[in-house]
Amino acid sequence: MNEIHCPQDLRRLSGAELRQLSGEIRSLIIKTTSENGGHLASNLGVVELTIALHYVFPTLNDRIVWDVGHQAYTHKILTGRRERIGTIRKDGGLSGFPNRAESPYDPFTVGHASASISAALGLAQGKLLAGEPGNVVAVIGDGALTGGMAYEGLNNAGRFPGNFMVVLNDNTMSISENVGSIAGYLASIRTKPGYLRAKGRIERFLDHVPLIGAPLHRGISHAKATLKKLLYHGTLFEDMGLRYYGPFDGHNIEKLIEVFENTKSIPSPVLIHVMTSKGKGYSFAEQDPGAFHGVSPFDVETGETPSSSDSFSSVFGACLCELAEKDRRICAITAAMELGTGLTGFAAQFPDRFFDVGIAEEHAVTFSAGVAATGQLPVCAVYSTFLQRGYDQILHDAALQNVHLVLAVDRAGIVGEDGETHQGIFDAAFLGTIPNLTVFSPVTYDDLRADLRCALYECGGVVVVRYPRGRQLFKPHDYLTSRSLYGQRDGETAQVALVTYGRLFSYAYQACEALRAKGLAAVAYRLDPISPVSEETVKQITFVKEIFFFEEGAEQGGVGEHFEALLNRSGWRGAYHLRGIRGFVKHAPMLETLRKLGFDGDGMAEFVESECVTWQKRND
Amino acid sequence: MNEIHCPQDLRRLSGAELRQLSGEIRSLIIKTTSENGGHLASNLGVVELTIALHYVFPTLNDRIVWDVGHQAYTHKILTGRRERIGTIRKDGGLSGFPNRAESPYDPFTVGHASASISAALGLAQGKLLAGEPGNVVAVIGDGALTGGMAYEGLNNAGRFPGNFMVVLNDNTMSISENVGSIAGYLASIRTKPGYLRAKGRIERFLDHVPLIGAPLHRGISHAKATLKKLLYHGTLFEDMGLRYYGPFDGHNIEKLIEVFENTKSIPSPVLIHVMTSKGKGYSFAEQDPGAFHGVSPFDVETGETPSSSDSFSSVFGACLCELAEKDRRICAITAAMELGTGLTGFAAQFPDRFFDVGIAEEHAVTFSAGVAATGQLPVCAVYSTFLQRGYDQILHDAALQNVHLVLAVDRAGIVGEDGETHQGIFDAAFLGTIPNLTVFSPVTYDDLRADLRCALYECGGVVVVRYPRGRQLFKPHDYLTSRSLYGQRDGETAQVALVTYGRLFSYAYQACEALRAKGLAAVAYRLDPISPVSEETVKQITFVKEIFFFEEGAEQGGVGEHFEALLNRSGWRGAYHLRGIRGFVKHAPMLETLRKLGFDGDGMAEFVESECVTWQKRND
Repeated sequence: MNEIHCPQDLRRLSGAELRQLSGEIRSLIIKTTSENGGHLASNLGVVELTIALHYVFPTLNDRIVWDVGHQAYTHKILTGRRERIGTIRKDGGLSGFPNRAESPYDPFTVGHASASISAALGLAQGKLLAGEPGNVVAVIGDGALTGGMAYEGLNNAGRFPGNFMVVLNDNTMSISENVGSIAGYLASIRTKPGYLRAKGRIERFLDHVPLIGAPLHRGISHAKATLKKLLYHGTLFEDMGLRYYGPFDGHNIEKLIEVFENTKSIPSPVLIHVMTSKGKGYSFAEQDPGAFHGVSPFDVETGETPSSSDSFSSVFGACLCELAEKDRRICAITAAMELGTGLTGFAAQFPDRFFDVGIAEEHAVTFSAGVAATGQLPVCAVYSTFLQRGYDQILHDAALQNVHLVLAVDRAGIVGEDGETHQGIFDAAFLGTIPNLTVFSPVTYDDLRADLRCALYECGGVVVVRYPRGRQLFKPHDYLTSRSLYGQRDGETAQVALVTYGRLFSYAYQACEALRAKGLAAVAYRLDPISPVSEETVKQITFVKEIFFFEEGAEQGGVGEHFEALLNRSGWRGAYHLRGIRGFVKHAPMLETLRKLGFDGDGMAEFVESECVTWQKRND
Repeated sequence: MNEIHCPQDLRRLSGAELRQLSGEIRSLIIKTTSENGGHLASNLGVVELTIALHYVFPTLNDRIVWDVGHQAYTHKILTGRRERIGTIRKDGGLSGFPNRAESPYDPFTVGHASASISAALGLAQGKLLAGEPGNVVAVIGDGALTGGMAYEGLNNAGRFPGNFMVVLNDNTMSISENVGSIAGYLASIRTKPGYLRAKGRIERFLDHVPLIGAPLHRGISHAKATLKKLLYHGTLFEDMGLRYYGPFDGHNIEKLIEVFENTKSIPSPVLIHVMTSKGKGYSFAEQDPGAFHGVSPFDVETGETPSSSDSFSSVFGACLCELAEKDRRICAITAAMELGTGLTGFAAQFPDRFFDVGIAEEHAVTFSAGVAATGQLPVCAVYSTFLQRGYDQILHDAALQNVHLVLAVDRAGIVGEDGETHQGIFDAAFLGTIPNLTVFSPVTYDDLRADLRCALYECGGVVVVRYPRGRQLFKPHDYLTSRSLYGQRDGETAQVALVTYGRLFSYAYQACEALRAKGLAAVAYRLDPISPVSEETVKQITFVKEIFFFEEGAEQGGVGEHFEALLNRSGWRGAYHLRGIRGFVKHAPMLETLRKLGFDGDGMAEFVESECVTWQKRND
């Protein structure tokens, strides 16, 4: 492994050496993720596939776009980043995802699902226009293929006037052995160039192979199964203009090399269907790939991961179950994030009222709005960063209808190690632009429970409850869960107010304690809801002459600027200081990132001390 | 026709009377659109289909969701709105689209394409949970089926545990007569309940019907053709779990009634494929359905529409052609809006550099970003309201890559008669939340040309040029096209500044003239770009003590609030007044809507007079 400095070096290795390499890489990936956390099962699944791709497409003229990108560890190891792989997901280290800024071998920064075909097709078209040589390959999983964007991409890829390769990385082999083996046999002869002209005949033969009907499941497993049926027909891809080859064993390097070599010169779009096992080569992950999808650091020998503790997600899930027991109208919708959003219990307890729609945020929101229009109470749980996919649907299909539904937005704010593609720092701003919306942002678990109840039973229209990744920060000792504006007591005599929302309130409270110890009469306030903010709420704070607003989200167009406008409109003429987030935020542990952004207690207190007009006057 | 007060009344009519009714409705639609403008061809195409649907599904328990919704005139006529149909698209009149607030027969407010299946599935699921009887039907065109959201909807519809009907309204019959007639014959027996069990056999037979290969075209025609191939296979829908029936003649009312009657009790999802002719029954529209898609008032006898004059769209298209002649890197991407965005000339002149990707805004943006990553210069032209679909892609696939591409955003601001589903009033706000973006908002055609050149050759990253529907307003006589901040001369002595962006500057200029005539030293400024606004730009205006900001867009999170924050940050402590748009804006003619919002010269002057502190002090 130490002799592979760039993909070209792979071509000097024999088949046995390539297999040995895959074993070494696998060990490195297990070691790295056991120490740093990260995506384990998906990375173990594509070791051979990645080696084969870089063996066949070793140059910088060839471009590989990984869908989602969490499976790109082997890709990084083979493209000059082996020595830094131990830094992955750490502050200042490698990104957990392909990143244009990190390597010329990463042609596109990725993170969100289903986008690879569109991006890769753009790269291919651009190269064609520029007259540049080289192949472009999109590698997409069967899960990501449930997103509408992948279909839009395929629908356009079919007419590309040259080679364009989509590799379908199919993680699970749930279809019967019989069909699979015939298809595999046929595929093996179909990839030999000489047989290409026989394709028509083979297809007619394929049409006679009966499909084994499988009972349809709910959720992403259903979506995957549906699409798998389409694959085995070959019709979806073939009819969209891509030649279909497969399925192939994704752990047979030499076979994969042969397939890619045979198909890379076909002057039209091709789809290569590869079967891989998630977690391959690490028994604990093979047995439970779900548990080893995204992991915290774990013990390699025992496979033991730290037991999961409570989190905003688990509190949300438990609270929703409690409410749903009493109210049959409540149902839950998620876009392939049952586990991540804490809805596993709900799905088990209320299977008829639980809908996992696949990686399809657009559909999730509009479907929820449809359900809401009948008087039911849908709660649609989505990660903040993925909700960006549903902006139009929230606006046009939910808010405009003025139906009553709840969006539970998980991972709102800084998420940490997943980095700039996954930070939930835009939802507060983009949701603020949509009329008829109420947006709650709880500080504590108790707030979350209260906000969820309020969203369901005291509000109308579209109501968002947004909460951060992980656990609640500490709860100030005199803290009361109440809405609209909550501040520390003895606010009336305050010279300076620190206003914020969500978990930052815990830090703002700490900052105030520190500032008071230094003699500045500071008080902390939190907003909840953050939109709309009533005139009355604004009024309550206008007695303070200097306000510091801290926002764990985009500053431009965010809550802080809007609050400032509301203050000014009310006639307030004090000094206003805003610290929000500008630009994208790179990966680092979550709380460390907050600290670096100046959002911990010390950072806030320092900001106040350095900017405070009242303080400076006093010290003059 | 006058005896049809609600859909139930249809059931009293004979076949001959239903045919007569369709003729009467057709005449009414032609008369109405010739007077009011509107969507003609699509409405003429679905007269019989709509009658048949309401014949079979006449009650309020049954729900029909029209995709896009511009084809719902017959639906409105049959559901108690016949007498008001002459008011359609007029101020205070009927909406041009189905609207929940308008009628209990409109279960969902629609306007954007490809959403009907998701919404209808939500309605069906909600009814099921509530134990309510009745059918739910989604009617979707073949064009809308190119959007990824439709696919996400279909992918979930297949597992609905009861009747759920998707009617595919296929506008153009480009497939050979032979296949069509066999399929029609087969379909006619397949819709008889007794024959359902023979389906498997028929399908095997269908598999032997050879497909007639057609050369693939670019753009939406390609996307439609691709999907049509899938339809005739029957596999896409069948494999997604919907039973496929069709194609049927969409102008044969009695046949359609029979089909719907036969399929409405099937306890699983069904797809009914209906062939219709756009413009049916009006020869001018039949011959040129494109020209009669969305029309201005026209002469019924001659079919003559007012000749199209210049517009921001046409200026954009001509300018882009000019630039592309000199620069081979420039290419244009559109999402099924070649004509609307003024790109017809570009498509003809540079067919290799023009990409119509179908109704697929997500793909359009990410594909453009891919092209940009290769050093080409993509210009992606999308309507403001439809760009809402691409929010995540602009953020995650374009801005985060920091590639250089141009988004040409047409119909930015108030669009008029199409109403609340189509107003382009959110883009300035939601684009402002995205890092690394530059957003231009030209006042005049000359500005548009200058901004487009600047976007291509003087800026980096993602650059947006956004401009309104229709023509430029008047150009102030001393107007100079220049960037960042432009104000009337003699600004230095001004007491009050009216700041705005885009076309409102013309009105702000008028308002200033009026205010000066009354003795108030008012001056008008425009921002361009509107994001980012440099400190220097802000500095230039801080000498004015009172500022009025007018924003033809969402107020919360918009440019006006951000500008206010920048002013305050610079130390400015004057009086700031902001007039933006709150909530959704209903249909009415474009300039009339601007007037009603207080955005014409008189409205702005009145606002200043009533709010102006300087003015009031002087008058005290």
